[in-house]
This record gives sequence, C-alpha cells and structure tokens, in this order.
Amino acid sequence: MTTQDLVSQIRSKKSFLCIGLDVDLDKIPRHLLLEDDPIFAFNKAIIDATHHLAVAYKPNTAFYEAYGIRGWQALAKTIAYLNEHHPELLTIADAKRGDIGNTSGRYAKAFFEDLQFDSITVAPYMGKDSVEPFLSYSDKFTILLALTSNEGAYDFQVLPSGGEALYKQVIKTSRTWQNAQNLMYVVGATKAAYLGEIRRLVPDNFFLVPGVGAQGGSLKEVCQYGMNHQVGLLINASRSIIYASSTADYAEAAAAKAAELQQQMELVLRDR
Amino acid sequence: MTTQDLVSQIRSKKSFLCIGLDVDLDKIPRHLLLEDDPIFAFNKAIIDATHHLAVAYKPNTAFYEAYGIRGWQALAKTIAYLNEHHPELLTIADAKRGDIGNTSGRYAKAFFEDLQFDSITVAPYMGKDSVEPFLSYSDKFTILLALTSNEGAYDFQVLPSGGEALYKQVIKTSRTWQNAQNLMYVVGATKAAYLGEIRRLVPDNFFLVPGVGAQGGSLKEVCQYGMNHQVGLLINASRSIIYASSTADYAEAAAAKAAELQQQMELVLRDR
Repeated sequence: MTTQDLVSQIRSKKSFLCIGLDVDLDKIPRHLLLEDDPIFAFNKAIIDATHHLAVAYKPNTAFYEAYGIRGWQALAKTIAYLNEHHPELLTIADAKRGDIGNTSGRYAKAFFEDLQFDSITVAPYMGKDSVEPFLSYSDKFTILLALTSNEGAYDFQVLPSGGEALYKQVIKTSRTWQNAQNLMYVVGATKAAYLGEIRRLVPDNFFLVPGVGAQGGSLKEVCQYGMNHQVGLLINASRSIIYASSTADYAEAAAAKAAELQQQMELVLRDR
Repeated sequence: MTTQDLVSQIRSKKSFLCIGLDVDLDKIPRHLLLEDDPIFAFNKAIIDATHHLAVAYKPNTAFYEAYGIRGWQALAKTIAYLNEHHPELLTIADAKRGDIGNTSGRYAKAFFEDLQFDSITVAPYMGKDSVEPFLSYSDKFTILLALTSNEGAYDFQVLPSGGEALYKQVIKTSRTWQNAQNLMYVVGATKAAYLGEIRRLVPDNFFLVPGVGAQGGSLKEVCQYGMNHQVGLLINASRSIIYASSTADYAEAAAAKAAELQQQMELVLRDR
C-alpha cells in the first residue's frame, strides 16, 4: 500500500479512523466463548460492521500472545481475513518491536512476509540498525514510537537530550534513515499541544494517534495541531469502539461508535 | 526463581553462561529439517548437550515469530522442556516488549503465565507504567534494556539527557519503580568501558551481557568491570555456540564451545 492509496481511501470514506482490535476474552460477549475461535469471531463481526467507516485496523499483538498459540492463530486468521476481504484497508501490527539488526530482520519477516501486515509499530531505543530492517521493505510502513499517550511518556521521552526533547531527537534522527519516507510516527492524542511542533519536524509523514476516547484525548485538538496537506493522521480508537456493548448487539454498537467518530472526521475534512 | 537460587547455580556450575537459542532454519544441520519440529529438535539437542555448562537459556522471540504458528509452537515446546527437565535453569524470553500499562500486562501474562518464563527483556522508552506490569510479578525477573551491544546504541542511549547519558537516566529512574530489586539490565559486552560506571549505579542487580563472541566483546573486560559480590553477570553467547558446527556433530560442537567459555568463567571465579 502506498501513501497515495491511503489518502485516496481517507478522501472517499471521509474518515481517518483506525480501529484497535485489542481483544480480551473477559470483555467480549459471553455467547462468543462457545465459538471455535472466539477472538476471530469477534474481530470478524467488528470488521464486517465497521469497515466502511474506518481506513485501518490495528491488532495489538500483546492481546493475542496472552492466549498463546490459540491467540497467534486468531491473529493470523484476522489479518488473512482483512487481506482477503478488505485489501484496501491499512493493516497495522501494533507490536512495538525492536532489536539488533539481524534480529529485527526476523521480526520484519514475521510481520511483513509471514502475516502480511502493511505496517508495524517499532520502538526506537536501540537506534538505526534496529529500525532499518523494517524500513528496507519499501512497500511497507514502519511506525516509530515518538511521543506516546501514557503517563510513562514523561519519564524519558521528554527529557532534554542533546539540546531538545528526546522524542524530537528520535524524529530528527529517523529522518536520516533509509526509506525514511515510509516512516509514520506514534504521537499520543493526550499530548495534543506537542503535535504542532512535531508536525513542523515532519510535514509529510502520517501520525498514528492513540488516546482519543478511553485515554481522554480530544479529536478536535489533534486535528487542529496535527493535520497536514494530505490529512496525515490516523486516529485510533480501541476499547471505546469494540467494547461499546457487551451483549448480542456488540457489532452494531461498535458501528454506531465508529460512525460517531467518522462523522466528526467528515466535518473536520469538510472545513479544510 | 530467586537471585539466591541463581547465585547458587552459578557457584556450583562454576559458570555464568547464558545460551541464546536464536534458531534459524537456514543455519541448522540439514538432516533436522526432516523432523516434525526441526526448531525444537535442534533446541532439545543443544540443551541436552550444554545444560551442565550454562545457567540460563534465552530464546529470542523474533526467531520463532518469523515462522508463524509453527515457530510459536516450537517456542512453547522449548520452554516446557526446560521447565520440566531443567527447572534449576533461568529462562529468559528475549522479547524486548513494552507498551502502555494494560497492554504490558497482557505481555506479562503471555510470557510469565502462559509460557512460564522466569524473566523477560523489556524496552524502557515508554517509561514506568510500561515496565511495572512485568515487575508486579515478584517471583520473576524483568530485564531492562540499558546500553545495548549494537551500533544503534549510540543513536539515543548515550545522548546527554537531563545532565547525563540517557541509559544512566533509565537505570536511575528504574530504581524507583516497584519491586526494583527484581530488575536486571541489558548491558552490551561491546561497551565494556561503560560497565564499571553502570555497576556503581546498581551494585546489586544482575546484568545480562550480550555481544561476547560474534559481536566482538571481551569476556575478561566484562568481568573486570561488571562483576559484583554475587557475580552479578550473565554472559550470553548465541551464534558462536549453537552454530559451532552445521553437520551431525552440532550438539557436541556446541558443548565444546560452551565448555571453552565455562572454563574461562571458572578461572575468573577462582581468582576472586
């Protein structure tokens, strides 16, 4: 998938919504537990009900690994279903991987070749040779953690480092890496005030923005500070959509929540 | 496993060797590819031949994820084999995970409860709430990336941050987290000169030291700068041991390489 494909999808759906598929068996409707693969059954119903409202889906690998082999199988089925039935959607493995070069190469193989995700989230701490094996796939996106949405973001990411905040150093340095045009950045919605500064550093790259909804970030502020000429934002919502209802109407409830966000996004896109 | 259990094992085996099980099907002896589960068959033979020479085994998850479900199954069988046949050994999931609090909790469940590893490597970029879910398991070790062995370590880890290098800030801040006595730190052998300074910051915690062997670090220097009153070091070797031979004698060759390292360690322990 190219940036142009993504932007076209955003324009036609009037949405830049990403739906996080963070499935917890303790939170899904009880009747699904009778299915052969409750996680996949849940994901399929959510995708079927919301795919016209969203442009990206983002399973977080932690939620699948927590169920061992059965979880990994559900992840594989979910990405295969997305690729077969909705190839226009951007798929994001929210895996936050990163290791020395030859090892990051194995993660890239896992997510880009074996599972066939379009993109993956990657942690920057180990530097260039831990990220470039992902970037070497020129038809994929590598989504680097910059300024995350959680409280712990203040522990190290904002420390003054070499003259400015560490997250800015991460962004600036990453621009010198191979295929840097294929980088996206994770920037939390809870840090909307920082978004404008980050946008000035990387005018053309997309931001993946978690933290609207359950974590308290504001869609309006994120758009105000973070948008660029080709929208440049993917706003993620996970729990607020997929757990909108815990009864038989969960997929319709998820679609209603997704539609609310899509309508707010449509208004923003119309005003620009 | 407690620190005392680990130290006792080190004293009785006269070894502080950790063997990295980073299995690549392109590098293992060809005849193993006929096995039902070549990865597990390889690991089992390596473990059987070396367990008296090593105190810890460290599968890196990237190498298993690269083979999808079959890889995850091989990882599960490997850790189950270690736990059943060699419960005295420390098991390390080299996974370099880290995410917002509730998500890190899912990773902790995956590796500590489902797979039953004794410890896991964790990335610090997302701060306190991304690490404490691992630390909340008081009978497990959480191994935090501090100063890694790769070239990219120089990109961000050594940047002056709030007055001193980022990796020092990471170490100092981590000491304030819950159950900080259960932290270990990844410190690359290729950075031996830094080891003394790091040891002064955390006199009591163990260091997991990659980079001796294939990456060029020196065992002697690591011991000189990094040891503490209870040894305090786990020296990892992966490729130099497990790929010592690519023919039918691979397990014996691995044992010979492991024995070389163990004998060097025995000398170091005798001199102290």
